[in-house]
Order: sequence, then structure tokens, then C-alpha cells
Amino acid sequence: MENINGGVTAAKGFEAASVSAGIKYQGRTDMALIYSQSPCEVAGTFTTNVVKAAPVKWDKKIVENGAHPQAIVINSGIANACTGEEGMKCCKEVAEEAAKVLGIGVESVLIGSTGVIGVQLPVEKLKNGVQLLAKQKTIGQEMGNLAAKAIMTTDTKEKEVAVTIEIDGKTVTIGGMAKGSGMIHPNMCTMLAFITTDAVISKEALQMALSSDVEETYNMISVDGDTSTNDTVLLLANKMAENKEIQKDTKEFEIFKAALHEVNTTLAKKIAGDGEGATALLEVTVKGTETKEQAKTLAKSVICSNLTKTAIAGHDANWGRILCAMGYAGVKFDPEKTDLFIQSSVGELKLVENGMALDYSEKKATEILSKSEVSIVADVKAGLEMATAWGCDLTHGYIEINADYRS
Amino acid sequence: MENINGGVTAAKGFEAASVSAGIKYQGRTDMALIYSQSPCEVAGTFTTNVVKAAPVKWDKKIVENGAHPQAIVINSGIANACTGEEGMKCCKEVAEEAAKVLGIGVESVLIGSTGVIGVQLPVEKLKNGVQLLAKQKTIGQEMGNLAAKAIMTTDTKEKEVAVTIEIDGKTVTIGGMAKGSGMIHPNMCTMLAFITTDAVISKEALQMALSSDVEETYNMISVDGDTSTNDTVLLLANKMAENKEIQKDTKEFEIFKAALHEVNTTLAKKIAGDGEGATALLEVTVKGTETKEQAKTLAKSVICSNLTKTAIAGHDANWGRILCAMGYAGVKFDPEKTDLFIQSSVGELKLVENGMALDYSEKKATEILSKSEVSIVADVKAGLEMATAWGCDLTHGYIEINADYRS
Repeated sequence: MENINGGVTAAKGFEAASVSAGIKYQGRTDMALIYSQSPCEVAGTFTTNVVKAAPVKWDKKIVENGAHPQAIVINSGIANACTGEEGMKCCKEVAEEAAKVLGIGVESVLIGSTGVIGVQLPVEKLKNGVQLLAKQKTIGQEMGNLAAKAIMTTDTKEKEVAVTIEIDGKTVTIGGMAKGSGMIHPNMCTMLAFITTDAVISKEALQMALSSDVEETYNMISVDGDTSTNDTVLLLANKMAENKEIQKDTKEFEIFKAALHEVNTTLAKKIAGDGEGATALLEVTVKGTETKEQAKTLAKSVICSNLTKTAIAGHDANWGRILCAMGYAGVKFDPEKTDLFIQSSVGELKLVENGMALDYSEKKATEILSKSEVSIVADVKAGLEMATAWGCDLTHGYIEINADYRS
Repeated sequence: MENINGGVTAAKGFEAASVSAGIKYQGRTDMALIYSQSPCEVAGTFTTNVVKAAPVKWDKKIVENGAHPQAIVINSGIANACTGEEGMKCCKEVAEEAAKVLGIGVESVLIGSTGVIGVQLPVEKLKNGVQLLAKQKTIGQEMGNLAAKAIMTTDTKEKEVAVTIEIDGKTVTIGGMAKGSGMIHPNMCTMLAFITTDAVISKEALQMALSSDVEETYNMISVDGDTSTNDTVLLLANKMAENKEIQKDTKEFEIFKAALHEVNTTLAKKIAGDGEGATALLEVTVKGTETKEQAKTLAKSVICSNLTKTAIAGHDANWGRILCAMGYAGVKFDPEKTDLFIQSSVGELKLVENGMALDYSEKKATEILSKSEVSIVADVKAGLEMATAWGCDLTHGYIEINADYRS
């Protein structure tokens, strides 16, 4: 596997474009198009929130019907959630417009929206945007990057990744982009992530690879504990790499899954590290549990703890809050056997052994926790399983963004 | 039932005292004593956190052994959590000292601690404090108030309440004090609350009344989603009101329970409204569910949502975040049938009908949400059950307190 520059246009035959449609923001792009030169197999995972945005309902139907989409139209600024019949009608009209100008079927157009909830989208502006996107779409790394920028809301950085693998002598590429920032506590999948690949792969294998991997990646991040109405991961495979079709339970499937995992992990960590107001990516690994599920639950409890998150913001090795957050996770473990470590690029420090504080240097601890990527490792010494979760610190920036921003 | 001024010394025969023992804070009191002139029946509920502080373990044993305590020694500043054998030894030595100077048995001394986790208490300072407390203890409203002040950490206000009821011609008083502020997301009971009554009541009825009521009161509040290691509610009944002993399943039991509910609700709301950094008490009522449990889960999900809490801080009627938080609570309901209202002392406004925004005045909404006590009502129109939860807004103050304060 090789990491390369690029995003959604890295794989063969994928084009992209972005435009300023004037939906909500001024002076920036707010619509993006991903277009495949040939029809794709598609896999998707969607929010488990009872309140589902209109584009989630639209895409879910397409993914489940076994259609072969060729385009994804995405807008930022307005989420098209809690918008009832009118919201669904908007999806249909935008898809129809895209189908017309791209010369494909309506069921070949997927839709993604992100932004404020409870506001109707301006359909005519979107339709005008679609026309411009269709004219401008082209291949190349730059277009992928512009698309990644257009889907941002309170994100501070665009989020892209691409890798190549070799499958029976053919180079297969997987690339993706995502947006995150707030209302990030995915359950089944994250805010918005779009992955493209030129692999030839069966629909069954594609969905299986995606569904199992989101559990370990997007579902292991949290910015603020709020599971969005719009969470969507879409994975398009346009088969242009000309490899022999990948089937499940083969060596090739494992290679593909490993590459997809790299793509998803990278995007998930970028989302966590760029959480609203975040100054640090917080990685929490829990090991020594009897089951993997226990490790996941404990790790997620720590990254969701507001008190742990504010301690990280203050570069304070307040390990009592970490142990406390593990304690209320709903998993049985022996706190009096638990060890705690902190790590970053400047070193590692053991804070707690068998539930009791060691005589560590607070100065060194603060130095470690002052970096932009910090890790906590907890070893409960009861078994051989482990899991990692990613979050971020909780700062004044989060309050500033969310006490004012109607998102 | 009548609300009266006072706290833990309101009921007959209860004395209190406070001293500055120099445990952690400078220039303020940090130890309190509650003392009953006669032995008490006791009921208690404790944290469900796997990590339990030493005083929680100490008190649990006393409550379960059917002892008849007469004193509670409480300190603020250090929680005596994650302190292993040495922490338990500290409880024992403090209880022994109190028993000696008060002339009662060791098993008659309950202990409460709150503050930073993972630090050992200075036993000698505590023992000196106990000696002073024993000398100073006396009846009267002022002493109860001083005790309520001594147990504060980041609380900005002391929290007291007292009510009287009449039971077969005798006046029965129930009073209490509590401390809250951070790490408040009780599960079985709150941070620290101490209730005293002069009622004559069987131990079984006392525990039953307390256990069922904490589910509706302390367990329905959240400041930051972090369930503490020290959550404790203790209820002492010293029988000095001379009423006929209250047994469960009687009319008198119902009267006692109603008064206890008033005491617990008042303290719970005071804890929620004085959450770290809070500028507003947020009350969320969900009605129209099929079961009470569903209403409780939905209401708690909204008061725990960081995005809802920051919207309240910004006086922003961002109802999409409210509906979103209900959506990920894990309860099935129809968002397209749901109505949302906001209320405060300046009026009420319906924001959403059947899942869709109404054309309400944003100015009026902001006016309503600018008050120090605001309510959200959600009606899911599927049944007859309802529940209320209490929280607070999430502000810069919370970040300031927790990014710096080693609590």
C-alpha cells in the first residue's frame, strides 16, 4: 500500500468540480460534484439518528435498490434536515437537474447536504449550481481539492486522502474526502465522507468492507457527543482499474479492506483533530480487556468526557478524570489494577500504576500534553483485546462557534 | 406541606458546624459536621461508577449494615477517590477521631468528600478539624448555612432547602443541603446531598422513599455528562418529631414522600442551575410518550447535548439541535409529529409543529431564552407519559474552570 497525494479524483475516471451557489455563505464555494466516467457499484452507511435528513433518505434508497450511480451533488450551508415533504422534493428536483445536464438517470445521482437544520434549501440556486458544476467538472488532483474545500462548514482544513494498492498486477486507487467539525459523534458513520475507487469489486464485497470498517474508524470518533441527522459515508467503485473482480473472503478482499481502512482512519482522525474549536487531536487506546467491545466502550467514554477534554485543553494531566470516565462507561473492570500512560511526539509518561498515582513529573506531563496530537493509553490488565478512539480537546473556540453560529 | 427557611439543621435535634481545616483551599471553610442528638435510621444511594471513592465505600457499608449513625463528617477540596488502601485508612482514622470526641461508635460516623481525585487527604489536618467541629456544633439555621457553604467546591451558591409536613398531629421537618457544580451526571444519586428529618420512620420505608425519588430528581440532572466517583445522597431520620412510625404503603408514607420529593427536586434544580460556568437553568420536559422511561431518556438526551447547551448560552432558538438530540437518544418516536415549545418568565413560544418550523419571532425567542431559567417542552404525541430533566448552558466559564482547575 502506498499513500499518495489526492482525494476523490485520485482513482481513475473520477472528476470533480466546485462552485459558489450562494446558498448561505458569502465569498466562498458551497457546492461540489463528484462524477464518475462510468457507472459505479455503491456502498453506503448512514446516520442511526431517528431524525434523518432528506438527502440521507434519498441516498439510502439508491444504495439499497442496487442502482449504479455516477454522480454525487453536495452542498454546504443548509443540511436539508427537518424539512419534511419539501425537503424530499428538493432532493428530487436537484437530482433531476443533474441527471439532465449529465445525461444519466435520476437514480444515478446521490446527494449530500451539511449545515443548519430546519431551513429549506433554495432549489433554484442549487439547480443553477448543478448546471455550472456539470460544465466545470474535470479530472485532476486540484479539482478534488476544491471539492473538499466546498463541503466545509466550520471545518478549518479540507480533509483528503488517497492510497494505491496492487491487485493481480493492476494498480487500484482509493481516495476520499470528508467534512466534520461539529455535531460529530457518528453512529454507523460520520458526518459526510465520500470515497472513490477504480477497483472492480462486487457490490456485496464493497458494502461488507465499508460496513465493517466504519465500526473501527468513523464510529470511534467524537467531537461533541451529538450524533448528526446527516451522517453519510458513500463509497463509489467505478471498475476502471480493470483488475479481476474482488469477491469477499479472498486475499484480494483483505488487501482492499486494509487500504480502505487506511483511507477511513485518516479521514476519521482528520475529522476528530479538526473538531470545532479543537487545538489537539486526542487518541485514547484501551487495552487489556476481555472483549473488543469493552475496549471500544471504555475508549469512547474517555474521548466523550467533557472534563477529560477540558483537561487536555489546559494541558493538565488530570488522570482522575480519565479513570472516572472509564468508571461510568458501563463496563466492569478493576480500577485498582489499571495503568495509565500519556504520550506525544516529545515522549511517554506512566501516570498511574494499579490505580494509584506514580510520582511523575508534572512539568514533563504538561510538556507531553501541549502537543497538537496527544495519546492516552489505559491498560486494565484483564485480557488481550484493545481498541482506539479519537476525539479532541474542548476549548473556548467550541463555545464561540456554537453559542453564536446557527448550525 | 410548607416551605421554610433552613437546611440540615431545620429538623429537630440536628446540629451542624464548619471549620477551616486548610485541606486545599486558603481563607475559607472546608469541613462540615452534621450531628444528630439521637441515633438515626439512615438511607443512602451511591454512585454507580466502577471507580468508587473511599468515603462511598465507607458509607455504603454503614447504610447496608443497619447501623444507627449520628454524625456526618464532610470535607471539600480532595475527593479521596483513587486513593487505594491509604484512602480507606483515612476514612477509618477520621471516623475514629469523630467517634472519640462525640462519644459515639465508629459505625455511627458517615463520611463525605468532594474535590480533586487521586490525591491523599491530610489525615492529621482532618482530625484537628474534627475536634474543632465537635466543639463548635450547635443547633440553628445559621450553622446549617455555614455547613452548606463549607462543602462547596466550584459551586457559586450554597444549596439548602427545608419543608414541614404534619403527620398525625405532629410537625415533621425535612431539610437538606447539597453541592454540585462539575462532574455532575448522577446515576443513582448526585454528587453530595445530605438530608435530615426528625420523622419517626422505619428504615425500610426511609430507603424506599429515597431510592424511588432519586430516580426522578438527582438522576434527572446533568451538568457535563460526567458521572462522579463520589455521588452520595444520605438521609438521616432521628425520630424526634414523635409521630407514629411511618410504614411503607400508608397515607403518611405518601405525605412524607411528597415532602422528600420537594426537598430533592429543589436541591437537584439548584445543582443544575449552578453548574460550572452556567448562566441559566435549563428545564426540559418531554411529553406524549408511551412509557415514562422513553420520556426520561429523551429529556436527558437534550439536557446532555453540548450543542443544545451552547445554543442556550447564545440565547439562540436553534431547535434543530433539540430535535437532533432527541433523535439520537435511542428512543423511537416520529419527528414529523413532534411539537417544540420554549418558555421562561417572559412568555412561551411554539417553534415547531409536526417537525416543521413555524413562522415564529426570533426576537421573542431570544428574549425568552435570555432569562436565567428557561424551559423546553417537546410533545411527541404518541402517548400519555412525561418526564422532566434539568441541566444548564455550556459557556466559556465551564472551559475556564476545567481547563485550569485540577478538580
